[in-house]
Amino acid sequence: MGLVTNLQSIRQSVDSKKLKIAVVKAANEDVLKSIKRGIEEDIIEPVLIDDEGKLTGLLKQLSIDLEKVEIIDQADDKKAAEKGVELARDKKVDALMKGFIGTGDILRPVVNKETGIRSSTLLSHVAVIFVPKLNRFVAITDGGMVVEPNKEQLKTIIEHGVEVMKSIDVKESKAAILSASENVMSKNNASVWASELTEEMRSDDYVVEGPISLDLSLIPDIVEEKNYRGKIQGDADIIVTPDIVSGNSLSKSLTLFGGAEMAGLIIGATVPIILTSRASSSDEKYASILLAQHVMNQKENG
Amino acid sequence: MGLVTNLQSIRQSVDSKKLKIAVVKAANEDVLKSIKRGIEEDIIEPVLIDDEGKLTGLLKQLSIDLEKVEIIDQADDKKAAEKGVELARDKKVDALMKGFIGTGDILRPVVNKETGIRSSTLLSHVAVIFVPKLNRFVAITDGGMVVEPNKEQLKTIIEHGVEVMKSIDVKESKAAILSASENVMSKNNASVWASELTEEMRSDDYVVEGPISLDLSLIPDIVEEKNYRGKIQGDADIIVTPDIVSGNSLSKSLTLFGGAEMAGLIIGATVPIILTSRASSSDEKYASILLAQHVMNQKENG
Repeated sequence: MGLVTNLQSIRQSVDSKKLKIAVVKAANEDVLKSIKRGIEEDIIEPVLIDDEGKLTGLLKQLSIDLEKVEIIDQADDKKAAEKGVELARDKKVDALMKGFIGTGDILRPVVNKETGIRSSTLLSHVAVIFVPKLNRFVAITDGGMVVEPNKEQLKTIIEHGVEVMKSIDVKESKAAILSASENVMSKNNASVWASELTEEMRSDDYVVEGPISLDLSLIPDIVEEKNYRGKIQGDADIIVTPDIVSGNSLSKSLTLFGGAEMAGLIIGATVPIILTSRASSSDEKYASILLAQHVMNQKENG
Repeated sequence: MGLVTNLQSIRQSVDSKKLKIAVVKAANEDVLKSIKRGIEEDIIEPVLIDDEGKLTGLLKQLSIDLEKVEIIDQADDKKAAEKGVELARDKKVDALMKGFIGTGDILRPVVNKETGIRSSTLLSHVAVIFVPKLNRFVAITDGGMVVEPNKEQLKTIIEHGVEVMKSIDVKESKAAILSASENVMSKNNASVWASELTEEMRSDDYVVEGPISLDLSLIPDIVEEKNYRGKIQGDADIIVTPDIVSGNSLSKSLTLFGGAEMAGLIIGATVPIILTSRASSSDEKYASILLAQHVMNQKENG
């Protein structure tokens, strides 16, 4: 069972609402394939924003029922992004999805101080990864948005990670602040902050611990071998990386070499933003839609 | 074929000298198992430094011929490390190996300004990893020694990586300076330096390119998909990480989740220093001994 089947199995028993989703610059084959799957599985109501002619051509080509989608004819990147954000602001959609458009272009109207839809001090990226060897979900954050977080930003990044994991039924997430070892390195701010946040972030909703290395975070056998006595015992739910390079490389190594599958969201706006890379497969895009649906349902059901 | 067999197959046809190796605090089962294998394969002449009684007990227990080893009776961590460095300084051994002793304790006499054996401005760690999915070696540096290298240090780290890859017959190594994407991020010094070093480090001996993400560094299919037109085309030999956390986590994710095997050396002293973690297996220690032998032979044969 992979990422999609595992995400699908969550809340099957619960009343799960359809996700109204605005897709900014939707006229792209992999994007529309993931939308088609969402329509067929009856989990989404899509609003597709792009050049109408190009869109209807592709929709016909992919045998997507035109009755099942709403089309907004807007080919311009900037205006298409503004339209998507407007729909979210007016509560007409539950999520935004990046189609064939640059990350900066879709995020600019999101963070606009007057007309934007930011709900947190920070937008951060949460990758939810299904790791076959562990046979469970692990979140990695932030390998996609915040370049080099400061201590306050790390705190928000952790909170966003906890929110996402909660939506897929992981209660009391254990968040490991990643380092090369368990020692605080005075030359390395993140390891100092990790140790401070371990003390400061106490909650019934999550456990935070760091600095800690990848093996003790994820592999119980090594915890035993090294006789590590922390709150995390190879059972971390969230790997909090000190910067975008370590997070990005870790996600990629797991998917490229560990057979893992990944879904990605930006958290911190009034709606989750599905922000997979333009090169990512329709599977990854679809998994991200499912994840956004879980986050939306979690928000509504509390 | 794994890491050890691949390392063994190099220079089988060439006259390969035995490695005279000083093992600092050798009285440890995994350490001595790797030494036993080296003796049986006839590739090392070990000088074991530790408490003599403890050593001989373990040697007998592991059925290691006492005639094949030299013992120096010194149980004290500090003095054992000083003795190992003295042997290297006097050219009585070709390599140092860390036994059951802390990394700081073995490196302190190495970097001593008066009596030490530093040959470079910087000691750096090179991990050589055999990645089954790629069916080849990849070096990762530096995930074990330099916490947050500056630009000059990155340069030395790359040079040390090239030296090690040369010793295992990788000519004109391609070094990828790792980032989250191919964009220079102004907030991220390493990505700026990566771009500068791409211009500045031109040589017939190696290729340097960055910033570049993990997928374009190692996966030719993704290079094609993304139509990337760099000098590296999924064929990087060396992954240069901007800091110790990203390097350490990447090595660990490849070994823990990608079925990879790893050997590790510290480069920058007059002899290579085998510095595997105390928890690493005798296989990893043995692979590191083989790697040190290649580096030593490379130095002598030019």
